[in-house]
Amino acid sequence: MSAPPDLEPAFEAEFVVALTTLFEQRIPFNHLLGLRIDTLAPGGVIGHLAMRPELIGHYLHQRLHGGVISATLDAMAGIAVMAAIGARHMDETPAERMRRFGKLGTIDLRVDYLRPAVGERFVLRGEVLRLGSRVATTRMEFSDAAGRLLATGSAAYIVS
Amino acid sequence: MSAPPDLEPAFEAEFVVALTTLFEQRIPFNHLLGLRIDTLAPGGVIGHLAMRPELIGHYLHQRLHGGVISATLDAMAGIAVMAAIGARHMDETPAERMRRFGKLGTIDLRVDYLRPAVGERFVLRGEVLRLGSRVATTRMEFSDAAGRLLATGSAAYIVS
Amino acid sequence: MSAPPDLEPAFEAEFVVALTTLFEQRIPFNHLLGLRIDTLAPGGVIGHLAMRPELIGHYLHQRLHGGVISATLDAMAGIAVMAAIGARHMDETPAERMRRFGKLGTIDLRVDYLRPAVGERFVLRGEVLRLGSRVATTRMEFSDAAGRLLATGSAAYIVS
Amino acid sequence: MSAPPDLEPAFEAEFVVALTTLFEQRIPFNHLLGLRIDTLAPGGVIGHLAMRPELIGHYLHQRLHGGVISATLDAMAGIAVMAAIGARHMDETPAERMRRFGKLGTIDLRVDYLRPAVGERFVLRGEVLRLGSRVATTRMEFSDAAGRLLATGSAAYIVS
Repeated sequence: MSAPPDLEPAFEAEFVVALTTLFEQRIPFNHLLGLRIDTLAPGGVIGHLAMRPELIGHYLHQRLHGGVISATLDAMAGIAVMAAIGARHMDETPAERMRRFGKLGTIDLRVDYLRPAVGERFVLRGEVLRLGSRVATTRMEFSDAAGRLLATGSAAYIVS
Repeated sequence: MSAPPDLEPAFEAEFVVALTTLFEQRIPFNHLLGLRIDTLAPGGVIGHLAMRPELIGHYLHQRLHGGVISATLDAMAGIAVMAAIGARHMDETPAERMRRFGKLGTIDLRVDYLRPAVGERFVLRGEVLRLGSRVATTRMEFSDAAGRLLATGSAAYIVS
Repeated sequence: MSAPPDLEPAFEAEFVVALTTLFEQRIPFNHLLGLRIDTLAPGGVIGHLAMRPELIGHYLHQRLHGGVISATLDAMAGIAVMAAIGARHMDETPAERMRRFGKLGTIDLRVDYLRPAVGERFVLRGEVLRLGSRVATTRMEFSDAAGRLLATGSAAYIVS
Repeated sequence: MSAPPDLEPAFEAEFVVALTTLFEQRIPFNHLLGLRIDTLAPGGVIGHLAMRPELIGHYLHQRLHGGVISATLDAMAGIAVMAAIGARHMDETPAERMRRFGKLGTIDLRVDYLRPAVGERFVLRGEVLRLGSRVATTRMEFSDAAGRLLATGSAAYIVS
């Protein structure tokens, strides 16, 4: 392969639109949370979440509920695994790749809460540390709009 | 104290109502999820969650989103810690005890997903394994209506 | 099968000896730690560990190193998974069952430290919460000789 | 402060020697494992571990025991927290800073195992994601000599 090793294959617009639509619209709880995807690449996924009163977790402070953080980090890890699986099968059509995601399941999830989540908008990142033939291990970050790290996560997925 | 050591002090109705109302009504994200408390005792808390279309996580199957499980287990662990703190301060009025919960914060959370969460109604349990002067460690379970264990969790909290 | 559903098949002495010997003698790091198996049953495994000066983790106190706890809980979860796999294949000879353990691998591990581990002897338990066709989820406990819970753990394993 | 923000205060040799000696020599289980510190800085700690037959975890393969990985990652996180606490108190003498470490305790630990640990020498890194007044959250990595990531970890510590 003549490309530099850090140059990943880019996804076709068709695949990006299909996977983003699945994630944002056809997974009802992601839609309820308002989680949106901004960048979908083989090496990782970036999304964002807008603060809304229903997502508050503390009646005195205007803090995001910790459960919103764990739920959205889990979702980001899942779509990062889908992107990594998609990148491994670029010889297939986007539609064929989309059919591969039916077997995906979360094995477990850990979230470390670093700082109170206060703000208008939050940025989420998910990346796959290792995609094996059976298990994928992921790492996630939840930051505020200024880039301050508010929570980190890791999750394991069964992939086949 | 003449009571046997395994007989826990029971909470007054005033405290149970105040804490349940705080949890179900005044924490907006718990309200959005529809998480309800059924039993609130010093040794642990039991609640339930009704399935709703917005909580689905998989567009093909009618499965609960994994993020709903992590969010509700986190919430159950939090109220279990509040109950354990309340039980340690039964010499205070219920209102005084309620004021102790402002400093509570989740340090981290782990969830193990055992089986797909399918059903009309789910049962959640939270208990405190150890309440120290600084840290509380909790264990949680998420089951279906038939008592089948679907997920387990553990979480650590800072309490003062 | 006419036996009540909660009556587990008992292992033959040959299998118990083979698996215990593998665990205690042929896994060098378990031998270095001095981890011993006392009960090996399909539903769970119980073992113990004797305190030794080399296992201390704090130069001022005589506490067991946290890493001894995580290492032994990981090991106990692994043998609990082996027992659960063995119980599923009682139609095979003990030797055939022993050959099934080559593919086993830890996906991840979590340990919650509840209390300082001080004492002469510690008791460890491992049980499998769910053995699937691909993943096993386990729960572990680390106690002192008086039965006081010092640490808990959970771990996921790939099994095939 | 006129120094660039990424220029951390460097530790005095006296502090580096004292903390390294404590870690490698006066914590018996670290000594048993053979865990060594190579770099000790406010922003993180790097160490290494040499493979030895007693550290093997699988009788068929020459793989490091998963428990060695969890134990050494826990230890690396602990010394990274000590370094971060030390960096916050550079106005104190090295001896005064050393006395601050008595209250440190691991709350919990997670390890994700990515690849089999085979090799002659392993490299470990620990860094503090956030040092609060009560809790420190850490992230760790375990790699082979070629820099291939074999395991990652996260741990929470109580610091006062």
